[in-house]
Amino acid sequence: MTESSEIAETILEVLGNESRRRILSLLSKKPCYVSEISYSLKMAPKAVIEHLEKLEKAGIIKSFEEGRRRYYRINKNLRIEITIAPHMFETCVVTGINNMDIKKIVFDVGELLNFKFEKCGTIELSDTIRKIEKIQQNVSKLQVIINSKVNEMFEKITKEINSCIDSEIERIVMIGIAKGAKSAAEIAEQFGISYREVEKVLKKLEREKILSRIETEEGTFWKLKIKNT
Amino acid sequence: MTESSEIAETILEVLGNESRRRILSLLSKKPCYVSEISYSLKMAPKAVIEHLEKLEKAGIIKSFEEGRRRYYRINKNLRIEITIAPHMFETCVVTGINNMDIKKIVFDVGELLNFKFEKCGTIELSDTIRKIEKIQQNVSKLQVIINSKVNEMFEKITKEINSCIDSEIERIVMIGIAKGAKSAAEIAEQFGISYREVEKVLKKLEREKILSRIETEEGTFWKLKIKNT
Repeated sequence: MTESSEIAETILEVLGNESRRRILSLLSKKPCYVSEISYSLKMAPKAVIEHLEKLEKAGIIKSFEEGRRRYYRINKNLRIEITIAPHMFETCVVTGINNMDIKKIVFDVGELLNFKFEKCGTIELSDTIRKIEKIQQNVSKLQVIINSKVNEMFEKITKEINSCIDSEIERIVMIGIAKGAKSAAEIAEQFGISYREVEKVLKKLEREKILSRIETEEGTFWKLKIKNT
Repeated sequence: MTESSEIAETILEVLGNESRRRILSLLSKKPCYVSEISYSLKMAPKAVIEHLEKLEKAGIIKSFEEGRRRYYRINKNLRIEITIAPHMFETCVVTGINNMDIKKIVFDVGELLNFKFEKCGTIELSDTIRKIEKIQQNVSKLQVIINSKVNEMFEKITKEINSCIDSEIERIVMIGIAKGAKSAAEIAEQFGISYREVEKVLKKLEREKILSRIETEEGTFWKLKIKNT
């Protein structure tokens, strides 16, 4: 077993549990402390602590102190890919390298897609499979690079919001919207805050021209209007 | 929750169990019946049956009858991608579409990688993230297409081997080699056959010029020599 597939095994064990997936989802919105997670996800603090320990042991999250509180945040920047097909079952962890030869990958992929699979015998098939697998690994690395770009941008948005908004609940609502939540209901559900409170904040932020409201047939949606200097 | 993420949830639950992952790994080598799985993986038949039921219920495997035996094989052709990063936690199931505009994807990806992330404000960031996510979905679809090509080739190799080899154990050894196993030890472990038996078959297939032996410092490795007509 390679190191990558061992990490994949550990991560699959950890992700096999719904509560741990919900905790990770919450921590991807913002770093949290135990009672915050417990309150948001309606989970007993003891259970939360146990899950956090497993996640930390697997290296997926890490904790840090701020004020008198211990916060937890997602630590890793990785991608797990699972392929399930009649002749394939593979799990692997992909991490990106920044100096990849993008042009080479793009060329390889293009060539591959024009390849006449029907025409090759068993020896060539075997070699071609190895070649394709190599290309696919490169495409996966490309995706990790794209992921880390997106993550960097979220980092930037979060910092900007934190620097210009003081109220804790306003910050949560803004980050929720920035990270893709569209309605008050979605934010209320994601962060375990009451719908009324979220609505109140959204209206205040609209008055301050920080958010804009979009009315559609499916309901009211919200979008960031803030502009950095 | 979208349909895709619901499927991802079900699959993560199922893959959270090591025994089920081992069963899937075996079935990706060849379709098997219960006592074969039980023997190969040294697992009680009752436990095997329970795991098979869960896998079948999730739609990952399906069973078929051949002779008087019920075989199990992997049914789905899919890819599960999990992104873990400080600001992202996403699980999704990707299925490919054959008529994708590959050139467009390749162009989009190239443009993206030259994009000046530092230069955009929060509004543009938010929009750019959406755009990147769209491109990434396309790249993922591309990978599923590549996967299904590889799977097709494995299908072809397996058919060829089945048509020209009669002995069950020779077939297993050949398929093992074709699917990437390099040594007798690897095949013995994967299929739960004794090392001695695998060695015997390998030598026989070498004499018949179906396999070729490669001696390296790390040991003896085997490669297919068969050529289709």
